[in-house]
Amino acid sequence: MIIDCHGHYTTAPAAHTAWRQEQVAAWEAGVGAPAYPSISDDEIRETIESSQLELMDERGIDLTVFSPRASAMAHHVGDEALSLEWARRSNDLVHRVTTLFPDRFIGVAQLPQSPGAGLEASIAELRRCVEELGFVGCNLNPDPSGGFWTSPALTDRSWYPVYEAMVELDVPAMVHVSASATPVFHATGAYYINADTTAFMQLLQGDLFGDLPGLRLVIPHGGGAVPYHWGRYRGLADMLGQPPVETNVMGNVFFDTCVYHQPGIDLLLEVIDTPNVLFGSEMVGAVRGIDPSTGHHFDDTRRYVEASSLDDQARAAVCEHNVRRVYPRLDAALRRAGR
Amino acid sequence: MIIDCHGHYTTAPAAHTAWRQEQVAAWEAGVGAPAYPSISDDEIRETIESSQLELMDERGIDLTVFSPRASAMAHHVGDEALSLEWARRSNDLVHRVTTLFPDRFIGVAQLPQSPGAGLEASIAELRRCVEELGFVGCNLNPDPSGGFWTSPALTDRSWYPVYEAMVELDVPAMVHVSASATPVFHATGAYYINADTTAFMQLLQGDLFGDLPGLRLVIPHGGGAVPYHWGRYRGLADMLGQPPVETNVMGNVFFDTCVYHQPGIDLLLEVIDTPNVLFGSEMVGAVRGIDPSTGHHFDDTRRYVEASSLDDQARAAVCEHNVRRVYPRLDAALRRAGR
Repeated sequence: MIIDCHGHYTTAPAAHTAWRQEQVAAWEAGVGAPAYPSISDDEIRETIESSQLELMDERGIDLTVFSPRASAMAHHVGDEALSLEWARRSNDLVHRVTTLFPDRFIGVAQLPQSPGAGLEASIAELRRCVEELGFVGCNLNPDPSGGFWTSPALTDRSWYPVYEAMVELDVPAMVHVSASATPVFHATGAYYINADTTAFMQLLQGDLFGDLPGLRLVIPHGGGAVPYHWGRYRGLADMLGQPPVETNVMGNVFFDTCVYHQPGIDLLLEVIDTPNVLFGSEMVGAVRGIDPSTGHHFDDTRRYVEASSLDDQARAAVCEHNVRRVYPRLDAALRRAGR
Repeated sequence: MIIDCHGHYTTAPAAHTAWRQEQVAAWEAGVGAPAYPSISDDEIRETIESSQLELMDERGIDLTVFSPRASAMAHHVGDEALSLEWARRSNDLVHRVTTLFPDRFIGVAQLPQSPGAGLEASIAELRRCVEELGFVGCNLNPDPSGGFWTSPALTDRSWYPVYEAMVELDVPAMVHVSASATPVFHATGAYYINADTTAFMQLLQGDLFGDLPGLRLVIPHGGGAVPYHWGRYRGLADMLGQPPVETNVMGNVFFDTCVYHQPGIDLLLEVIDTPNVLFGSEMVGAVRGIDPSTGHHFDDTRRYVEASSLDDQARAAVCEHNVRRVYPRLDAALRRAGR
């Protein structure tokens, strides 16, 4: 089985996206949000079948761990109440996808983070998504300010309540920023990758997993710059008097395979231990288009993993078993379905 | 010949570093800076011979393109006048090193940037360093705010005056941030790498080299995350309707080899065309210490380049000829010395 740990509902129905624009406009005008539109099951089916599912079928991906569009979380916009309603609507929509296509999608929650706000609403929404909607994880934004980095490092104790809820619910978080609110950082070309690298370095500098050994974090986009600079990180841990990254960080941190060329995937799989790598593609949308040098989509990461030197057992770990281990509720759901 | 394009004077005499502390304290107190201390040639010789030069000899590095300590530039501290005096003192000190060891070091300038200030003082100091001190390039900080990214993108026209001076003087800039003023970004583990990645993406989004075809920029630390995510950048250029990075950016941009493990260097040399790679180590100091898995220093990048699959001609390009081409004043100085 091939499980994609990193998919976003980038093709959500136009009415959902339009409602968000109206919601923000209403907030800015100081009036109440408009009524959320009625969206039919057929509309949802159409947005999935014509893109995400078609690509999954073409690429042989059995199941996608699916969350609301990351760039649209936009935690920097409005306030906590605005984020909360937007997160609930977005999560409910993903839940409808998972209900319409129960064999192909399983949900991951957007959290209603907001700059300067506490994490109570995020914990409540995480709990709702896991306990009521059958979600198996969440996306945690290390910088809800959209590029201004006003939150403390991920190792700061102010984050612990949401970590404790994750441990209690036995769900991991993918550390994932949203849109960039500053033109100096292109979202998918700079901000996402920088955030991945930043998060890893914060974890290297701290002892988060000593405090919370049951916590699991996925760093997407192949771990940002980290595998390419693996010697730098191993050396910095030594230089800073920290334990080796292999024990201090990599017992609890996982990188996905959202690296869009063969040499990058080969490096990832060579440098990072197999149990720490989860298959992912981040499709549809982070990088659309076809690589003229291969004739295939840049984000068709299955091809790179297939063409790597991994043996069958390691490939099965990356494509299925590791994801099931890191997302135990996904594994339980699959087992209930006899998969 | 082996030329290291990326060395900083991290072992500067204690009196120089202490004066900087006094200078900042005086600025904060609103009083004039103390007199700059007298530093003997012997003191300078000792700080070089006991560290940088010893390591260069051990590693067979003939010449280092040498600039003031990057993390100490600290453009975010004080104002433009403070930065100007600090830059001049730091550049003068590097000049003394190049005078004491003319066969082994050649200078690259620190610029007196300051958040919100214009670039006139930077241009004047660049001109002084090149025309009077024999320097061959400069370090340009894309974020003088120290992590708050308050400056416009490198493609913004406000940067053009310094670029035009660089073109006129025929010197490149290494795009290099300084210390991080926010605890969320570790300097060498996150901020440096993020800045490299950010700079490349800004260049991808623009047409800087269409406007200034004679401009040359070096992105250090192996190009940040870029080579590892080369497919992402090629795909984003296509998706954004930009020309291919190979023509839009890579005619004028060069990555150094400051990547501290073999698989990283191998990827860099596989993915990036040989003419775009310059040998560099960033020693002494970014990552000190010995890799227990190899028994050698993490930053002994010559070993990785030697062990790569480059043929002799390509290795000579990376280790010497590319640096001489990108820094024509270095080449001219070497030719004058019959090298």
